[in-house]
Order: sequence, then structure tokens, then C-alpha cells
Amino acid sequence: MIELALFGAGQIGSIHARSIAADPKARLKYVVDPRPDAAQRIVAATGAAIVDRATALADPAIGGVVIASATDTHAEIAIAAAASGKAIFCEKPIDLALDRVDACLAAVARAGVPFQIGFNRRFDPSFRAVRDAIDAGRVGKVELVVITSRDPAPDSEDYLRVSGGLFRDMTIHDFDMARLLLGEEPSEVFATGSCLIDPVFARLGDFDTVMVVLRTASGRLCHINNSVRAVYGYDQRIEVFGSAGMLRAANLTPTSLEYSGADGIVSDKPLYFFLERYAEAYAAELRSFVASIAEGRQPVPGAEDGRRAMLLAEAALASSKSGRFEPVRTT
Amino acid sequence: MIELALFGAGQIGSIHARSIAADPKARLKYVVDPRPDAAQRIVAATGAAIVDRATALADPAIGGVVIASATDTHAEIAIAAAASGKAIFCEKPIDLALDRVDACLAAVARAGVPFQIGFNRRFDPSFRAVRDAIDAGRVGKVELVVITSRDPAPDSEDYLRVSGGLFRDMTIHDFDMARLLLGEEPSEVFATGSCLIDPVFARLGDFDTVMVVLRTASGRLCHINNSVRAVYGYDQRIEVFGSAGMLRAANLTPTSLEYSGADGIVSDKPLYFFLERYAEAYAAELRSFVASIAEGRQPVPGAEDGRRAMLLAEAALASSKSGRFEPVRTT
Amino acid sequence: MIELALFGAGQIGSIHARSIAADPKARLKYVVDPRPDAAQRIVAATGAAIVDRATALADPAIGGVVIASATDTHAEIAIAAAASGKAIFCEKPIDLALDRVDACLAAVARAGVPFQIGFNRRFDPSFRAVRDAIDAGRVGKVELVVITSRDPAPDSEDYLRVSGGLFRDMTIHDFDMARLLLGEEPSEVFATGSCLIDPVFARLGDFDTVMVVLRTASGRLCHINNSVRAVYGYDQRIEVFGSAGMLRAANLTPTSLEYSGADGIVSDKPLYFFLERYAEAYAAELRSFVASIAEGRQPVPGAEDGRRAMLLAEAALASSKSGRFEPVRTT
Amino acid sequence: MIELALFGAGQIGSIHARSIAADPKARLKYVVDPRPDAAQRIVAATGAAIVDRATALADPAIGGVVIASATDTHAEIAIAAAASGKAIFCEKPIDLALDRVDACLAAVARAGVPFQIGFNRRFDPSFRAVRDAIDAGRVGKVELVVITSRDPAPDSEDYLRVSGGLFRDMTIHDFDMARLLLGEEPSEVFATGSCLIDPVFARLGDFDTVMVVLRTASGRLCHINNSVRAVYGYDQRIEVFGSAGMLRAANLTPTSLEYSGADGIVSDKPLYFFLERYAEAYAAELRSFVASIAEGRQPVPGAEDGRRAMLLAEAALASSKSGRFEPVRTT
Repeated sequence: MIELALFGAGQIGSIHARSIAADPKARLKYVVDPRPDAAQRIVAATGAAIVDRATALADPAIGGVVIASATDTHAEIAIAAAASGKAIFCEKPIDLALDRVDACLAAVARAGVPFQIGFNRRFDPSFRAVRDAIDAGRVGKVELVVITSRDPAPDSEDYLRVSGGLFRDMTIHDFDMARLLLGEEPSEVFATGSCLIDPVFARLGDFDTVMVVLRTASGRLCHINNSVRAVYGYDQRIEVFGSAGMLRAANLTPTSLEYSGADGIVSDKPLYFFLERYAEAYAAELRSFVASIAEGRQPVPGAEDGRRAMLLAEAALASSKSGRFEPVRTT
Repeated sequence: MIELALFGAGQIGSIHARSIAADPKARLKYVVDPRPDAAQRIVAATGAAIVDRATALADPAIGGVVIASATDTHAEIAIAAAASGKAIFCEKPIDLALDRVDACLAAVARAGVPFQIGFNRRFDPSFRAVRDAIDAGRVGKVELVVITSRDPAPDSEDYLRVSGGLFRDMTIHDFDMARLLLGEEPSEVFATGSCLIDPVFARLGDFDTVMVVLRTASGRLCHINNSVRAVYGYDQRIEVFGSAGMLRAANLTPTSLEYSGADGIVSDKPLYFFLERYAEAYAAELRSFVASIAEGRQPVPGAEDGRRAMLLAEAALASSKSGRFEPVRTT
Repeated sequence: MIELALFGAGQIGSIHARSIAADPKARLKYVVDPRPDAAQRIVAATGAAIVDRATALADPAIGGVVIASATDTHAEIAIAAAASGKAIFCEKPIDLALDRVDACLAAVARAGVPFQIGFNRRFDPSFRAVRDAIDAGRVGKVELVVITSRDPAPDSEDYLRVSGGLFRDMTIHDFDMARLLLGEEPSEVFATGSCLIDPVFARLGDFDTVMVVLRTASGRLCHINNSVRAVYGYDQRIEVFGSAGMLRAANLTPTSLEYSGADGIVSDKPLYFFLERYAEAYAAELRSFVASIAEGRQPVPGAEDGRRAMLLAEAALASSKSGRFEPVRTT
Repeated sequence: MIELALFGAGQIGSIHARSIAADPKARLKYVVDPRPDAAQRIVAATGAAIVDRATALADPAIGGVVIASATDTHAEIAIAAAASGKAIFCEKPIDLALDRVDACLAAVARAGVPFQIGFNRRFDPSFRAVRDAIDAGRVGKVELVVITSRDPAPDSEDYLRVSGGLFRDMTIHDFDMARLLLGEEPSEVFATGSCLIDPVFARLGDFDTVMVVLRTASGRLCHINNSVRAVYGYDQRIEVFGSAGMLRAANLTPTSLEYSGADGIVSDKPLYFFLERYAEAYAAELRSFVASIAEGRQPVPGAEDGRRAMLLAEAALASSKSGRFEPVRTT
């Protein structure tokens, strides 16, 4: 039984608490959150105790920490957890500033503790099936990847203000998927963004609509498109094309119902948002983290995966300003 | 918090135990099963205690019983539970013999205890959406219903010998769906069966392949087809046609993956069998049972639903011998 | 170049005229129709000449006749054409009365002329692909067939009055498909019908909604359901289930467009009616007729196919009255 | 009846000849092609006469010309036809060199003759339905367009050598669709290409795999991806995303057959290549050309549409070398 401490009792923290509760191999021992109400809800649901950070990290029974607090606290909690020798599951992004990411990852490396980054989409059963099929050789050599990722509705202005911008906050998941699916590191990034949906994005110097092209050294290509608003719900699709065929993972729907009427054939919209679409993925990523601690192996996706996705986001941001292919930092 | 006692620790009993464990409004207090190994597994997973029937029924803290034992014990346990004033969830069928069903339901009625029959399909989200759409008037007046229900592989001969035959064991679920979807009681049943798959069915005087037609008093029609073997997995579809359109609920698949290759476009087979396809339905029916106890209302589907499906099975069996429309008993 | 004479310049006659015009191996030489307007339209489109029956049949250049006149004239024209030694393409049904069918087929047999019955659905590319896949062994041994066949809207009362009733006029196509797909002759028929849509059907002693079950000697089963009104358009689907899998042919749509909006995902309704859905089938059946004349072989489906479908319709009609499995005449 | 002269009796010329033959409003009077065999086949099928260019253009009965000859002859034939006052249907591209395109269009403008460019995809029923739905406001304001266009197999090296390269030969169709669907002229183009499939492309300084991003002045974005080889056949899809929803046109298949077997659910590959996929589009574009002559209106897509698609191809080529957004010439 792996005992865990959870940092952050907000929406994502609650999901992780539930995942831990449902995993027979894990137990949530502590919740750390300055907001008593939020923490209390998790206590009620799981029987965990509310403690402060020091207490949680000092307890030798704690095998790992789950960091789901505000983004600007991820790095410092991770560094403290690493110093205490705990395995770390950290929500993305590690930090919005690359130097703090590097400092954090250096601390993790020094401590030699396992580190998993919260790229939940890797654990979505449909996306995982795409990856497995690539590994099994079904598309031969990968040549083109197309990633569609659109939110049902924009975040609040309060959130957007601290989000780091669309590339670092939203596209970052797609950058991770791109790396996974291309099978080679992207070496160049082109990105362009627009403000078509809500003036708040322009006001914040951000984009609400973007297109990205990634290119690897051998010439494999990946396209990503993002929008912050899709009236039909959360649109999460991937397509991988190669020498032996194509793989596609479509959206998931609440039911298989189809209505044939005078105005056409109508079927369900996609599951509304990430909580619904990635419910299984959230549970699976925590199970994987717990299992990696139990089995003494490095969790995947790891620290370097978190950092590389960030480097792609940085290059995209630069490209959206320069209007040209920007090289991706390799170190 | 509703405390429950579970009778029967086999495959279905284990599913119900898990559903109870996942329901924050319920707690599994007792498991009753003569086989210590089976019961022990549920104890390990849920913390329930193993007791005998008398102890479980004598405990005033027990608000309801879940009967998932061997079919021939359903009625007697239900009668005892009714006498103890417990709410009853009973797996289908109540009994293979109609007189024992009637005796059981009389006892339940006398005791005035809530009774829910385990027609799990009513709780499948896709099938429920069909029903909701009918209620919302999307197909207008229902005219035709088509139910496809095929198992991936036949049961063992040992099971078949005590199953009561295909109509009572397998089609019974479809009879319940037919009643639900037609919106009127079937008054006549035509059925014909064949032995095309495994000689064991012929040896047992049973069928492995059947077609049924139901007719209501106003002339609404329903077709059911069953097979005990579908190489592509569990095939569970319904179609409802009416004056304003058609509703269809298709099979569910493990992923949304689609592969385009030189030999065609390939997508997932349906979820393999009832444990996978009806996972959500099993959880939902138990939640519904618990909620009905908590709220002091009659659970649905109830005793009469269990009995009427059986009457349709009896009529189907008679028709498969007579070769003609058989009337359905109305009392 | 095969020169043909067309009897009947109505809707179906016009389709056949167009098919002949588009076939480089055929030429429409004559149109025979007492209604000058109808015939004139075909003349304008094809350059055929309007003549009377005797002239058409007396011309030795005429290699075949296409009979698309009123149903009650099919048999006498076919008998006359047979006497003149012409190959015959005859719209279904040959006649509504079985004795006249038999008389006609006897005349055809005596004359030894090729005879094709107008079961156009056999030439639909999707249905043909189902048949080819069965022949290729993809479903193994056929066990269950399900045929869905619903018209978008009822015919006029004038037509219904002379149609011979739903089984002989509409289900007859499905009976032919059933024979084709089952791979064995049905030996028993169960049918039940209702009047749910338009009171005119009840007034005429006919049905607007039916369900049929066919059974072959070895126990293979087929279900057919018909309705005369589907608000979403012409619904024409087949499903064949066997020991090695299932084949399904779905409806065809005008475009592949799909709209994702706030109320769901909407795609095209099926092609409206037989002229649209079976456009390719109509052309292909005439090409097949012409090719069979050119190559001196018996066309398929032939006279016996027309007759056997009628015997199934007769048995269905009898069953809809008796409420029981009715045997199918074998001679 | 519009009488036409066809220049070029190759594959595309033959398709146009067939379209003309099937159009009751048009007649193919002349075929002009130096290769007697090719011309002879069209004569046999249509009854047209083989003449030389001067004869065809001198005949006052000729209302229009269809230019489907070798690309490097398009401009000169068009200029001659314009001088003779004929309406012109010209296969794309008008020419590979922009100055010759301009010279040709100037001649057309001077003569004031109708001119249609052969962007057949605009006439594909599914793509046309997308356009109609945009016009009807179904997606609100267009924000993102994604065009997938992949050939089943590369052209021969002989063809590639004179094709003008992938952007001018293949992507040009997608550039036209992009303009149509975006509803605004693209002002900037980013393109990157790779040689992943066949070394012949690298040898010719061409690409076999490309990704393109187009941007309009208001910030609407379009992505195009091309490959010269898709093992599953011709892949032609478009997706338009806007403020009120998304439209998608999927691939078309030969049949609606679906096989459910032990290895998955298998359906048809897309129609193999442009002759099959765009059969209806080819016929419709010629009908539209003929109708525009008959009705005395300018055909669409016109000369300027041909030129603008070329300007996008030029910008893409430049971008594939510069690695940056390239502006699109506006004059």
C-alpha cells in the first residue's frame, strides 16, 4: 500500500484524490491546502487528514506526493518533496519560467526521486491505443500527425491572466502528444495565433485560436490546431499517417444514441470537457504513478517530458512573433 | 447510509459488492455465501463480514438485501427477507417456476417491502437515453421495435442445464426492454428457435438461435433476435421506430480508434461481454436501489416487471412448440 | 448492339429507357404505350419510335422487350413476347394472381426465351457486396438475416387499390433478398401486420406496418420489417449474421457532410426514395439483361425467382390471417 | 444546344467528352488532338469529328472550347480561342509560369469571353454542401479550416518532371478550396515540405509530403496537408470550424458494407482516386460551364480564381525555402 500526500484540493486535486481512493494499491493519507473548505471536502470523501506541508513531507510513511496546487507553487513543493526523498507526481506545467523548471528538475535529479508529469492524455485509452498501434507497426513509418484540440469555452479572465498563455497552458498537452506520436523530437516549430473569439485574449497579449507546424530532423511533420471555444463541446482528436496507413482517434460521446428524423440523423456531441473525456485517463495516470513507486521504476512521462513540451511552447511563442520556423532548444 | 447484506458471492455478487462499495450512500455490511473462498474475496475488497442468513436478516441495521445467489434460492431468500421487512434487490429470474414466482411476489406484497428486479439493461446510459427520447416524444407514437441481443460465446453445459432455457435466461432481458420500449404490454408472442451452433442445445431441448415477434393490443410490433455466439463480441442494439422518427442505440467499443489500411477501415469490436458493456448499468441499478430505500419509494423495475417478462418467456416457449401466436397471460 | 422495345412509358419505364440509352451495347428502338404524352417524352430523350405492340414484336431486329406497363398487363405482354421469341425483362410482379404467373412462366418455358424479373435490389452495389462477401465465406454459415425496408411515405389510394397489398407489392422485394441471403429456400413463413399510419390501409384490408419471420429447413431464420412511412426517408438496410461474423449494408446518403453544433452531430438523411437509392441498381439490372442476351445466357434473377418470392408473399398473407407459421408451397 | 470543341483526348479529355455526351444541353462536335488513337476513342464514343485547331475555332457553331491538352499548351489554345470569341473551359493550371498566365488572362479579358478554370472539387456534392452550409450560416463566422488531401500513389517520374512541383500541381486544388472556405483571401502562407516516400521527389527538387498554413488579414487560419501516397486510397476531407459549429466532409466509399469479425469491424476504403471520387464533380463542372454559356453569364470558378490559387502556390514554394510566412501577391 503506497501512502500519498496531496498538495492542492481544487478541481484537479479532487480528481486525483478520487483516483487514489479507487486504487486498491494506494491510500491518501494527507491533504495540504491553505483553503480549509476545499481540503475538508476531500477529507470527507477519503478520510485523509489535513496537515501542513512540513508534516506531510516529514512522515516517512509517505511514499509519494501529488502536486495539484497553484502553478506557481509546483516547483517549490517539488523541490521540497525531492529533498525529503518522496516520489513526485506533478501537474503540468512544472513552472511557467524555464529557469525555475530547470532548477526544479536539477533538484529532482540530485535527489534521485521518481518524477511523473501530469500529461494525462497519454493515458486516454483511445490515444494509448493509437500509440500501441504505432509501436506495433500498423502505420509503418510515421510521416504526418494532425492534432485537433479545442476547448468548449474559454477560461475566466482571472485564470487566463496567470495561465502563461495558450501555448504554455493548452497547446502544451498537444506538444507532448506530438512528441509521443512523431517518434522523433521536433527540431523546428512554426506557430501563428489569432484573436477571433474573445477580446480578453488580445488584451492579455494572448491568442484564442492557433495553428502550429512541427518538423523533426528527418522531415516528419505535425500540425496542431487549437481553439478556446467549440459550441459542440470538447474536441480532442488525433490522426497519425504513415507509410502503411492511418490511425485516427475520434471524440467520445456520452451514449451511442442516434436519432433519425425529418431534419437529419443526429448523434451525441462529444463529452463536454476534460473531466468527462479524460476521466479514465486521470485515474490511469495515478495508478501508473502508484505502480511505478511500488515497482521501484521511473514513472512515465517524466521530468524531461515536461521540460521538452515547455521548450516546444517557448519556440511556438517565439515563432508566433517572428513569423518563421524557430529552432527548438535541445538542451 | 444504507447498510446492505449480499447473498451470493459469485461473479454477479462481486459486481454488486463493488457497486455498493463505490456508492457513498451505501455500505456492504454482510456477505452470505456457503463458499468461504468466494465470500472471502468480497470481504477483502469491502470490509464486509461473513455471516449466515439468519444473522443478516435479524440485524435491524440492515436496510436491504441483494440476492445474487443461485437461481433456485432467489425465491426463498426473498421470502425470508420480506418477512424480516428488508428491501429486496433480486437478480433475475425470481425463479424458473411461475408458481414459485407468484408465491414470492405474494410474500413481498404482504410484507409491503420494496422490491427491485435485476434488469440491469434499463440502466445502460445508451438504452436509458433511448427511453428518455421516447418519453420526450422524439419518435412520436412507437410502431416498431427491433432488439438485437447476441452473446459472444455459449455458456457451459453445466450452466445451461440449470438455466431454464434461452427464453427464460437470455431473452428475458429483451422481453423487459420490449415492454419498456413498446409503451404497451405485448398481448401475443410468436417465437421460433433453432440449434445451429452447438449440439449441446439440441441435447438439452433448448435453442441457440431464436427469433421472436411481439404484438400489443393496438398493433405495435417488436422483433427480438438472439444468438449464443457472435465472433465479434457482445452484440446489444436496440432500434425504436415511430411516427416521428427512429432511435438507435449501437454497440459500445473500448476505444474510438480507427485504422485505415490497404484492406479497409478497421475499428474496434464491441465491448466483449456483459461485465464490460453493462459496467455502468450494474453500478447505476444498485445506486437506484439504494436511493429508493433512502427516499422511501418503490424501486423500478419492480416485482411485476420481473413477472411479466417471465410470462413473455413462457408464451415464447409455448409458441416455439405450437408454431403460432400465443396469447400472453394477463394475470 | 441489342435493340429493345419498351412497354410502358411511366416512371419505371422512363428509368429503363434512360438505362438503355446509357448502355453502349443497347439501343431503345420502340416504345409501346397507349398514353401518347408519356411515350413522347421517352421518344424525345432517346430517339425511339412509338409503335403498337404487334409491330414491336413482329420486328425481327428486336432482341428483347422490357415490360414496365401496368401490372395487370405484364403476363399477357410477356406471353406475346415469348411467342415472338423475344428475351423478356419483366417488372415485378409478373401478376398478382398465381395462376396467371404460372401460365406466363409456362409460356416462357415453352418458348425457351430468356426471362429476367425486375428485382432491382440485387444489383444495388452495397447489397451485392453483402452477397459477394457471403459467397466469399466471410460470415461462415449464415444463421440470421434481418431486413429493414421502409418507404418514406405511403402510395396514393389509387395505387394501393390495385397494388395487391403490402406483402405482394412491397415485401416481395424483401422476400427475394431473403432467399438470396439465406442461401436456402424458406420453408415456413410467419407474418403479422398492423394499421398504425393511415386508415386507408385498414379500409382496403391491407397493412401499413408488418413484421415477418422466415425459416428454412435447416433452421436458418430471417426477419423482415416494413413500414410505409419513415419521416427520415427511405430506409433500406440488411444484416446477415453467421458463424464467422456479421455483414451490414447501411443506408446511403446524398453527401458525407456532418455538422457538429450545440444540439448534436447532424448528418444526412438517407437518399429519399427508390429512384435515388437504387439509381445504380436500375442501370445495372438493365445492363445485365442486355449482356445476358448478347452472351446467350439465362438472365438472373429469372422467372422462378419471381414466382418463389410470390409464394412467400402468399404464405405471409395466409399467416397474417391464421396467426401461425404457414408452409411455403414448393411447387 | 451548345456545341463544343475538345482539345486534348487524354484521360481528363475523355472524362470531359463523356460529361458533354451525357448533358442533354451540349454536343461534342470536334476533338482536336495530334494523337489519332486517343482522338479516335472519343470519336467512337461520341460521334465527334477529328479536326485541327484552326478548323474548330473557325466554326461559328462552336460555342465553347474545353482545353484538356498538355499543360504547356493551355495558354496558347486559350488565347486563340479567346481571339475567336469562344467561351473557354480550361483545365488547371492555366500555365506553370505566372507571366504566361497573366498574358492568357489579359487576352481573355480583352476578348470578353467567358472563362472557367477546372477546379472540379468545387462541384463535389459533399464539398458543395459544406460551402452551402457556410453560406447558410451554420458555422457562424469561419475561424479554422483543415484540408486533408492525399493521393493513393505517386505519379510517374515523367509526369512529375513537367508537373511544376507538388504545390502547383496538387496543393493548387487545396488552395482553391481554402479560398472558397475561408471566405477571405489568404494574405500569408507558410509551407514546409519533406521527401519521405520516394527519392525521385528529392532528385527533382520537389516534395512528396507537405504541410501548409494560410492566414487571412482578419486572422482566419487554414491548414493543408498533402502526401503523394496513402495505402488506403484517395484521402479527400475538409473541416471548417467557426463560431457556431463545425462542418466536415468525409471520404466517400464504394459501398456501405460493414463486416464485423473476430479482428474488428471493417468497412470500405475510400474511392480509389480522382476519377472515382470526383466522377460527379467532373460531370457537374461541365454542366455548369454549358449552362453558363447558355444563360450568358460568367462561369465560376473563373480566370481570377485560377490565378489566385497559383499565387498561393508561388508563396508556398517561396515559404518552403525561406522557412517563414510569405506574403501573397495581391495583384
